[in-house]
Amino acid sequence: MSLRHLLSPDSVAVVGASPRPRTIGYAIVSQLFKRFRGKIYLVNPNYNEGIINGIHVKFYKSILEIDGKIDLAVIAVPARAVPAVLEEAGRKGVKAAVIVSGGFAEVGNVELEEQVVSVGRKYGVRILGPNCVGVYNAYVGLDTMFLPEEKAARPPGGPIAFISQSGAVMTAVLDWAAEEGIGVGLAVNVGNRADVGEGEILEELRGLNYVKVAAAYLEGFRRRSDVVSFLKAAREFTAVKPLVVYKAGRGADAARAAMSHTAALAGNYEYYKALFRQVGAIEAEDLLDLFDLAQALALSPLPRGPRVLVVTSSGGIGVQATDFLLQHGLEVPRTPPDLEKELRTRLPPLASLTNPVDLTGGATNEDFAKALALGVEHYDMALVAALIHPPGLDEGLADSIIEVAKRGKPVVVVSIGGSPAVKELERRLRGVVPVYDSPRRAARALWALYQYARIKQKASGYSPP
Amino acid sequence: MSLRHLLSPDSVAVVGASPRPRTIGYAIVSQLFKRFRGKIYLVNPNYNEGIINGIHVKFYKSILEIDGKIDLAVIAVPARAVPAVLEEAGRKGVKAAVIVSGGFAEVGNVELEEQVVSVGRKYGVRILGPNCVGVYNAYVGLDTMFLPEEKAARPPGGPIAFISQSGAVMTAVLDWAAEEGIGVGLAVNVGNRADVGEGEILEELRGLNYVKVAAAYLEGFRRRSDVVSFLKAAREFTAVKPLVVYKAGRGADAARAAMSHTAALAGNYEYYKALFRQVGAIEAEDLLDLFDLAQALALSPLPRGPRVLVVTSSGGIGVQATDFLLQHGLEVPRTPPDLEKELRTRLPPLASLTNPVDLTGGATNEDFAKALALGVEHYDMALVAALIHPPGLDEGLADSIIEVAKRGKPVVVVSIGGSPAVKELERRLRGVVPVYDSPRRAARALWALYQYARIKQKASGYSPP
Repeated sequence: MSLRHLLSPDSVAVVGASPRPRTIGYAIVSQLFKRFRGKIYLVNPNYNEGIINGIHVKFYKSILEIDGKIDLAVIAVPARAVPAVLEEAGRKGVKAAVIVSGGFAEVGNVELEEQVVSVGRKYGVRILGPNCVGVYNAYVGLDTMFLPEEKAARPPGGPIAFISQSGAVMTAVLDWAAEEGIGVGLAVNVGNRADVGEGEILEELRGLNYVKVAAAYLEGFRRRSDVVSFLKAAREFTAVKPLVVYKAGRGADAARAAMSHTAALAGNYEYYKALFRQVGAIEAEDLLDLFDLAQALALSPLPRGPRVLVVTSSGGIGVQATDFLLQHGLEVPRTPPDLEKELRTRLPPLASLTNPVDLTGGATNEDFAKALALGVEHYDMALVAALIHPPGLDEGLADSIIEVAKRGKPVVVVSIGGSPAVKELERRLRGVVPVYDSPRRAARALWALYQYARIKQKASGYSPP
Repeated sequence: MSLRHLLSPDSVAVVGASPRPRTIGYAIVSQLFKRFRGKIYLVNPNYNEGIINGIHVKFYKSILEIDGKIDLAVIAVPARAVPAVLEEAGRKGVKAAVIVSGGFAEVGNVELEEQVVSVGRKYGVRILGPNCVGVYNAYVGLDTMFLPEEKAARPPGGPIAFISQSGAVMTAVLDWAAEEGIGVGLAVNVGNRADVGEGEILEELRGLNYVKVAAAYLEGFRRRSDVVSFLKAAREFTAVKPLVVYKAGRGADAARAAMSHTAALAGNYEYYKALFRQVGAIEAEDLLDLFDLAQALALSPLPRGPRVLVVTSSGGIGVQATDFLLQHGLEVPRTPPDLEKELRTRLPPLASLTNPVDLTGGATNEDFAKALALGVEHYDMALVAALIHPPGLDEGLADSIIEVAKRGKPVVVVSIGGSPAVKELERRLRGVVPVYDSPRRAARALWALYQYARIKQKASGYSPP
């Protein structure tokens, strides 16, 4: 059964909506009012009317009083009241529920959680959570997160979908992505994962055109069936789109922390590692890396092979990039003789042309453009160390890089610095060509692209053009 | 012989100074005029006078024409003219020279470089470079870097000294450090390392009170004597102050890049790794890590042992932090029963107290303050995951953290996000308590502190209080 009503509902009822500012019930409604394009109904037996975001609103006593059809119920009431609220939602014909309330299995109330699940089953209401912040979908304006935007910004949309076991991690990551300009258009927090899990969400994401890559933050699964469902969905997903996963909860002490967080068993990490590889998921080493890799996969074409051209104005960064590329199993082969000859006639005499192509501190934007345009034809991808401090370089280099990136080969950029020209270069590249603040991060991005090219080829016989 | 005249001269002569804007000879003088507190003399036989930074200046035909005593000559003339200029500097009694000019061993002109070295030896002029950007010393206002501040910012000073083999890396890193507020007060680029190398610089840094930690970026050494000198100086340095090194040029292809960059032999990486360990240098995994670790070592006291208290408002970040702490050989032991009992009476009932202490999304600044103040007494150090998006938390948390950090145990902070409160929290912590955007980076910082505590203990019998 599709999760359309959960991720892209036409109508939402907020049960536990409140006209009192600084409450969860107020914040959820306030965020929905700002963005959601469908119908919004407020439910709270304690109020008849009130004002939210300056809008005079009506409260229903019960979801059963509402006339219209409701796709999604967002439930933010005390844990013990949730079964009764869900019962009414079921009778109303609601298709899906985000249960924001905590106080279930994560604090030992397993029975209450089971009761909620069985009510959901009885009426066919799919449940996200409990103990979750729910869904953020920039494409339809759905936002069930209970923290106001002033405190936790939302990114403007983009090709990355984020699945997070932790609500706080999802909130913090979206706030960070908004600031960094990272295109996370859809985010889902599974919380206790009483019903809907990562597997079904991935299945749904596979069919959404606006999702180009999925990034998943996992701590552990409680049930074997959740693992099986995730792996099956992951295998199907990675045949068509890239999936990056970051798994936390790796040791015994970390497992103790995960247990008390979302009642999940962290499980054996080596076992997960092997499973991820089997289903074609690319493993990230932490949250930053998760989005470093997802960004490259969202923006770049796939390489035909592992051969990387490195173009730099700094010999030092060229050396570092080469280290990390080799360490990740990529290749930095020497410039072929005919290319070297051609570069020799077109580039300043001090440039070193063996790959890394080191244009030195005497480089100009034009030198970079030439080296890249000529060089990239002979390689599968390019890493551009765009340290634009030398006098001949400036933010205009971004345009030459974008030009070359349009030719269908992956290009990633390293930019280090903080002065206005550096910031402007990064701003121009953002959302078009992946840009990183260290050669290590850039090398990992190219590694992920190469990994996914191989995964896709294996899964579907696909061969990059 | 001391390098005082190189790093903290009282007077500087710029040979190749120029009144023509956008030249190297103009930029160097322009930067010196802004900050240097000693005497500045300009030498260029092609000019009698000119205007630099709006100041009417006089040019000397030769350094020999200058009346006053000169500690340091900054030489920015074509490579072939350098020996004659240095000869004059030697006859003048100049103590040290920064040779900015390139075109020596790095492009195969080994003989010219040897000639320069022998002129220096003859007169006892110590040489930095050639092929270098020289010295930045915020404490005395010395700045021989030829890129104007508008394009490449300089950090305002601070306890970290940076030794860089690469000039472009030094320039980019300082520009980045200025933006990030990282306290790099002294930076030296060795370039081709024809005379002065990392060893002697470390020896000098050991005696400078304003340097609390040294961070070195190495590609490789050309001579065995440079390696020996570096290792000897490193061993002496690490007995009193921490040294973090990042070594690039690890594989055969990277070695090719290093050779053409500063004529250095990258050498066997495993061999370097072992040597670094022997002399008590802490190895960083890339440039970002180099400064992550240096910052912690510059700001924090040293831990007595490996036991870390983790306090968090996000269970997910707690799980991640635990992973990375354990992976780095640190410990996250369960809360002792008496502490758990005390925390239970002081903290909200939903908080999980087993370490990580997870205060959950219901946490307040006060909860953090209590958990930290009570908890830190039972541990050697603390990692605070300060995700302040929940309603009860805000930037005021910084003050509680700083309060606890004053008690003499290391505290590092994880902060993720981009909204104004998050930025303000980070601003308040900056320069007082190390703050990182991922649990992995924070765990590595604590690891470095613990490593250095052990190194110092071993070297000097020192035991943290």
